[in-house]
Amino acid sequence: MSPISVKRRGIMFVLSSPSGAGKTTVAQEVLKQEKNLNISVSCTTRKARPSERDGIDYYFISENQYKEKVNEGEFLEHAEVFGNYYGTPKFVVEKYLDAGQDVIFDIDWQGTQQLAENARDDLVSIFILPPSIEVLEKRLIGRNQDTDEVVNRRMSKASDEMSHWPEYDYVIINENLEETIFDVRSILNAERLKRLRLKGLVSFVNKLRSKQ
Amino acid sequence: MSPISVKRRGIMFVLSSPSGAGKTTVAQEVLKQEKNLNISVSCTTRKARPSERDGIDYYFISENQYKEKVNEGEFLEHAEVFGNYYGTPKFVVEKYLDAGQDVIFDIDWQGTQQLAENARDDLVSIFILPPSIEVLEKRLIGRNQDTDEVVNRRMSKASDEMSHWPEYDYVIINENLEETIFDVRSILNAERLKRLRLKGLVSFVNKLRSKQ
Repeated sequence: MSPISVKRRGIMFVLSSPSGAGKTTVAQEVLKQEKNLNISVSCTTRKARPSERDGIDYYFISENQYKEKVNEGEFLEHAEVFGNYYGTPKFVVEKYLDAGQDVIFDIDWQGTQQLAENARDDLVSIFILPPSIEVLEKRLIGRNQDTDEVVNRRMSKASDEMSHWPEYDYVIINENLEETIFDVRSILNAERLKRLRLKGLVSFVNKLRSKQ
Repeated sequence: MSPISVKRRGIMFVLSSPSGAGKTTVAQEVLKQEKNLNISVSCTTRKARPSERDGIDYYFISENQYKEKVNEGEFLEHAEVFGNYYGTPKFVVEKYLDAGQDVIFDIDWQGTQQLAENARDDLVSIFILPPSIEVLEKRLIGRNQDTDEVVNRRMSKASDEMSHWPEYDYVIINENLEETIFDVRSILNAERLKRLRLKGLVSFVNKLRSKQ
């Protein structure tokens, strides 16, 4: 919007998909291209991959630390995925939203359900589907980071994950990465213009009207 | 969306603003740039301006024809504006929506209220505000097609018109025409991706899942 733009509260912007349908790539690209959009860095108990940095890709924590944070209600959402634990720290997200900054979440349906329970008005959720099962298979094998067993477990889990699309606000079929990124950015831009999110319009319009 | 895109019902896409805030220019530009978007041609009893063509800009009809159509329920919305009558023919819009085509409406708050009553789920509404009262004045005088009396009447009416922004889904402050067009197109694209509008996703996902 214009430099005159009125104040608004930030959006919790959720991207979910079955593993391998592209949500992480999409989230990273959208983050690069958008202003006022921040990543929600999760805590996890899983081991860091060689390319991952603590505090940037994840906060790598122990299982004991994780349990402590769950008990103290420090997570907006938390879940077990493939034997590891993940959680989203509440205080960071709240700081962004209050400042009118949006936060993108690259999480699964379990996390989304918890977020929805705690933050319905701030939440905008997108489910990304693969165009075909063949493409999904190719992407999962293409990673080359996981064993065959892990890939197979993921493929069978993908089917279950896909069944959760009706819980999301928007659905995108990721056939073309550029188009998917464009679609996600359109949704973000549109949601920022929703009347219900804009604060200060009453006084803006009253000022316009009083000049007549 | 991709060529795989699932079926959906069309959207009634409403742009409103006080006279002179730019909605007609914006609507025409968006129409030029967007596929699958059609204009809702209204009936009117007012005289055609030199540049206007019957059946393209408006259907120019007599007051008797207008009253007949109102009585027979042939309008989706109808209203008096500055002593002239306007109405949107129902059958044309329905044909587009059924075919998954969107229809753009360049109408005022009175028309929008009637549309909302008849077509809540199909309706997406945007209110366009001028960035300042000075800009609004300039635009109204800039037309040079109307007498001073008409301009003054419009200016005082603009204040009332502006008070209706809270009845719309989205609000855009039209400071920069290019940005406003981009914002309107973002909203249209996003609304097309809303889960509730997409038909056929159940069978699409079930087909994906059955292959595993």
